[in-house]
Amino acid sequence: MVATFAPGKKVSLAEFDAIYESVKNWGKWGPDDELGTLNYITPEHVRRAAGLVRSGRQVSMEIPINTVAGPDNPNQAIHFMTMGHDIDLKSHGLGFALDFMAMACHGDCHTHVDALCHISYKGLTYGGRPALEVVNSQGATALDIANIGNGLVGRGVLLDIPRFRGVKWLEPGEAVTRAELEACEKAQGVEIGEGDIFVYRTGHHRRRLELGAWDNSWPPVGEGKAGLHVDTVPWMHERHMAAFLPDGDGEAVPSTVEGMLYPIHPLQITAMGMLTADSLQFEDLAKACEEEGRFEFMVVGLPLRLPGGTGSPWNPIAIF
Amino acid sequence: MVATFAPGKKVSLAEFDAIYESVKNWGKWGPDDELGTLNYITPEHVRRAAGLVRSGRQVSMEIPINTVAGPDNPNQAIHFMTMGHDIDLKSHGLGFALDFMAMACHGDCHTHVDALCHISYKGLTYGGRPALEVVNSQGATALDIANIGNGLVGRGVLLDIPRFRGVKWLEPGEAVTRAELEACEKAQGVEIGEGDIFVYRTGHHRRRLELGAWDNSWPPVGEGKAGLHVDTVPWMHERHMAAFLPDGDGEAVPSTVEGMLYPIHPLQITAMGMLTADSLQFEDLAKACEEEGRFEFMVVGLPLRLPGGTGSPWNPIAIF
Amino acid sequence: MVATFAPGKKVSLAEFDAIYESVKNWGKWGPDDELGTLNYITPEHVRRAAGLVRSGRQVSMEIPINTVAGPDNPNQAIHFMTMGHDIDLKSHGLGFALDFMAMACHGDCHTHVDALCHISYKGLTYGGRPALEVVNSQGATALDIANIGNGLVGRGVLLDIPRFRGVKWLEPGEAVTRAELEACEKAQGVEIGEGDIFVYRTGHHRRRLELGAWDNSWPPVGEGKAGLHVDTVPWMHERHMAAFLPDGDGEAVPSTVEGMLYPIHPLQITAMGMLTADSLQFEDLAKACEEEGRFEFMVVGLPLRLPGGTGSPWNPIAIF
Amino acid sequence: MVATFAPGKKVSLAEFDAIYESVKNWGKWGPDDELGTLNYITPEHVRRAAGLVRSGRQVSMEIPINTVAGPDNPNQAIHFMTMGHDIDLKSHGLGFALDFMAMACHGDCHTHVDALCHISYKGLTYGGRPALEVVNSQGATALDIANIGNGLVGRGVLLDIPRFRGVKWLEPGEAVTRAELEACEKAQGVEIGEGDIFVYRTGHHRRRLELGAWDNSWPPVGEGKAGLHVDTVPWMHERHMAAFLPDGDGEAVPSTVEGMLYPIHPLQITAMGMLTADSLQFEDLAKACEEEGRFEFMVVGLPLRLPGGTGSPWNPIAIF
Repeated sequence: MVATFAPGKKVSLAEFDAIYESVKNWGKWGPDDELGTLNYITPEHVRRAAGLVRSGRQVSMEIPINTVAGPDNPNQAIHFMTMGHDIDLKSHGLGFALDFMAMACHGDCHTHVDALCHISYKGLTYGGRPALEVVNSQGATALDIANIGNGLVGRGVLLDIPRFRGVKWLEPGEAVTRAELEACEKAQGVEIGEGDIFVYRTGHHRRRLELGAWDNSWPPVGEGKAGLHVDTVPWMHERHMAAFLPDGDGEAVPSTVEGMLYPIHPLQITAMGMLTADSLQFEDLAKACEEEGRFEFMVVGLPLRLPGGTGSPWNPIAIF
Repeated sequence: MVATFAPGKKVSLAEFDAIYESVKNWGKWGPDDELGTLNYITPEHVRRAAGLVRSGRQVSMEIPINTVAGPDNPNQAIHFMTMGHDIDLKSHGLGFALDFMAMACHGDCHTHVDALCHISYKGLTYGGRPALEVVNSQGATALDIANIGNGLVGRGVLLDIPRFRGVKWLEPGEAVTRAELEACEKAQGVEIGEGDIFVYRTGHHRRRLELGAWDNSWPPVGEGKAGLHVDTVPWMHERHMAAFLPDGDGEAVPSTVEGMLYPIHPLQITAMGMLTADSLQFEDLAKACEEEGRFEFMVVGLPLRLPGGTGSPWNPIAIF
Repeated sequence: MVATFAPGKKVSLAEFDAIYESVKNWGKWGPDDELGTLNYITPEHVRRAAGLVRSGRQVSMEIPINTVAGPDNPNQAIHFMTMGHDIDLKSHGLGFALDFMAMACHGDCHTHVDALCHISYKGLTYGGRPALEVVNSQGATALDIANIGNGLVGRGVLLDIPRFRGVKWLEPGEAVTRAELEACEKAQGVEIGEGDIFVYRTGHHRRRLELGAWDNSWPPVGEGKAGLHVDTVPWMHERHMAAFLPDGDGEAVPSTVEGMLYPIHPLQITAMGMLTADSLQFEDLAKACEEEGRFEFMVVGLPLRLPGGTGSPWNPIAIF
Repeated sequence: MVATFAPGKKVSLAEFDAIYESVKNWGKWGPDDELGTLNYITPEHVRRAAGLVRSGRQVSMEIPINTVAGPDNPNQAIHFMTMGHDIDLKSHGLGFALDFMAMACHGDCHTHVDALCHISYKGLTYGGRPALEVVNSQGATALDIANIGNGLVGRGVLLDIPRFRGVKWLEPGEAVTRAELEACEKAQGVEIGEGDIFVYRTGHHRRRLELGAWDNSWPPVGEGKAGLHVDTVPWMHERHMAAFLPDGDGEAVPSTVEGMLYPIHPLQITAMGMLTADSLQFEDLAKACEEEGRFEFMVVGLPLRLPGGTGSPWNPIAIF
């Protein structure tokens, strides 16, 4: 049964909690499961994803790393040279150029992937473990990003909502519902199934490129951003989707839940144990899908193997 | 014609310079080429690489990021929590765990990929551009890692020298020659061809796991490391190989060239414009090759899109 | 002879260069001098400065370190916990809280002191040394901040221009002239002499506290800031002042020199070799001067001993 | 009454807890006190300290910041150039050299000062506040280093134990007792009184300079270090000393308390609320004291104003 919500009306916290309970995968893959919905991806899924490679075209879904602070980038990445070709290495003309980089793993406009330890709800993380034990002041002791060390490989399906609506982008605050996602699937002639990677485009990055950056960071007090209605989460759950790659981060701000600022994160990450990414860009991908005439492709996303990490910058690609 | 070198005798600087000239790809793909030997990888190569995916097994080639200083890790990576689940976000029990990471892009025991701007020889970088223009004190203005933003995808072939020799690992200072690489190919029943990715195992990481870390960082004054004889570079050049993924970094230390501490880097990167990586680990890969019964696989390596970067941490994987 | 400049008229580059030549201290204290105008401070000056301590009141001149990006703080400082009291040290209840800090040494709204290597003009640094030798891609090889490792101690004299004018602060773009500084001295009944520390208040920080941050960082394209007319530099030179502590950084933006964005820095640092600081706050100091009934006090400023550093954060204090 | 402990015999945890109770200053200066023993320093103490300035000689007590990892420096400081004089600022020959620094505030061989929030014992910090409230995952909410923003100014007295014993330095593991400190005072003809700053030399840094670095970091499993017997803490308490500046960090490792690895820190910081510093060097100071013929001097130490910080790098100086 699908809960329905009146359009324009906020979902209550009680309804939120009911969804939360209904999409829980806790214990489904054992009490110590570290992978969550990645368990849905079988060797057969990987093989079929590779089978989608025909033209050999590769498309990055990462925003170039941004070292300049701005309204949506309060904690800009850091990149410095540490040695240049002016230094004489005293080896017959050999020179090294070296550098150093630093970044918040969850910077709002830096493309990254979340570990399952990243979000807690009511003191618990995915699987029901106490959040203060899962992450202490020195890092994560479980559910860290290193668990995804062998990478995400699977079939990606793009749902391009601005294309479906015939607009350039969704405006801040717009929340796409399950009904619209299903209509978009039909219009595009694709279906996202078990073990698939849901690539969700709102046009967030295109808006940024055309209008400039705006304040949409945490805490969500600025202009807001387009995302998902919470009624889409049961849909992902029923379909057994394995991963979620959005531009923006999936959250509609202001949110669709009364009194809950960020409802999508705890539903996906804490309840479902779903692999989710954050702040991708699909401008090149959307164009490639048009040109290739299809909305499905092989996806490869490779987090850094950061022990204790709650996330990682990454550069996932689509291969056509 | 293949230059031959007497075993145990150092190559002279004049011989080194002759090799350097003979493997130059400067101008081959235009005066402003930013890709070097990646130009050898065609859509057909990508498609065939994907065709190697049969069991769906994924194997990481990254060493877990190491935040503890040691003899081969003088500039350890940095990983800090910046928020824990103890912070009340005032949103009905929602909690975020956030962290921050920092690292030298070319840290000696951190798996990374080099940009073509990384190495200069006699004041020039790949293509003959002046090194001090290509990299200034604020970063690279050309040949940076962002040029590989769509990632490395291709057919990888592992040559497992310790397996070939029947040893656990090569000892520091050992330099594998072209003749041995060709013999290893034959023994393994594989051949590395145009557009392929040469995955080169010396057992460096296994030695580290079993004996502990040793001093093999720059400057090369410590115990040294196993790598390649310079006579292997013309072989890579003739074969039109696209990329080089070693454990260690390909350099034999002490080097095989008299008076040149690091000869492989300028030959591969500056003369050839070859995509090279550094400090991978193939312990899981070697086991997987045995179990899968083959030494070829799809490789995907995805550098971060760091504008101006001379390299990037990455987590390349093999898919079987 | 004092050059005079018509009010409201820009100084030409030729006039700037004439001032530059006239205030040069190159070679005055030997060819390898690393101290510049600190040479003016004798033991007697230190003793007399200590003699100014009567009430024992201590007043900080540092702005609290700012970890939040903003229009005048594009490279905010970084401060993270690295361990909290939640970690069990297994020593009978002992707990450590540890943290990590990072900052640009010359961040625009972080109180810091400049080393003499910080500024070059026409390829040379203080003393006429080639700038590319004095600072290479790995740090300063001379004129670094570590030269001031024993600290700045001396008699400070505050000239409080907003108080003199009867305003809350100077507006961006206002440039105080030598004539006004001398008039302010007379009005306050003080004189800045040889070996003294010139503490120069424009009210920059008060403006920030009351109106909020504004864009006044490099490059100087924003709202600008209040500072000094270049005709004040010969005055500092003639008086043999030892050091300069401003709120803001002494530069009027837009500058008083046609075609030169930042004229005060090369005059003070490169030509004179003057110890200069940047981005102090004198709100507490101005109040203390009023209450203590005097504008002179002991100053102590202690840069970190950072070898190769071009500057250092610091927290200089006045002692009454 | 002074507790006495048999030489060579470990102090028990019960005895430790008795000392802890006996030296508590909790509540002495009000329930919300943030200053601890700095309350002992009156304006009169500051004035008298300034009165000690006679020769004007300034001596740094900071170890130059160390950016190279080593056995006692596992978390080396970071210092990078971010711009060099090669960058054209397009302003008639003006050049800036800029850099960036980063460090752990409590790095073992970096001179720093501790905030009162740094140490907890049995879940409490100074004043009896709950440690997990005083420091959360984002920093200190009380007892932070910014409380000492106006700096430490007072009369410093050096007790030079190696000089007293006629040795070059104390060996790791040696613990100086109250009796020896008092004997040293007499031999030197000085007395440390209320509001004074106890400067305590073991020769730790001289040993490092002559023998090289050794492993004496936390956890204390290496060669150890010289420090204090716990019986010295009641002596500091009775004397109403204001601050403690040691080379090393005051801890004898192995410690003098059975089952407690670091007993001095909780006694000084948590129980007494004493301002303590860490990892100073007194090689220049010891020489200066000999040459000046006295062991007392003005001390100025200026922590950075880091809100929420648990400590700060600093460069305290002695002025004679």
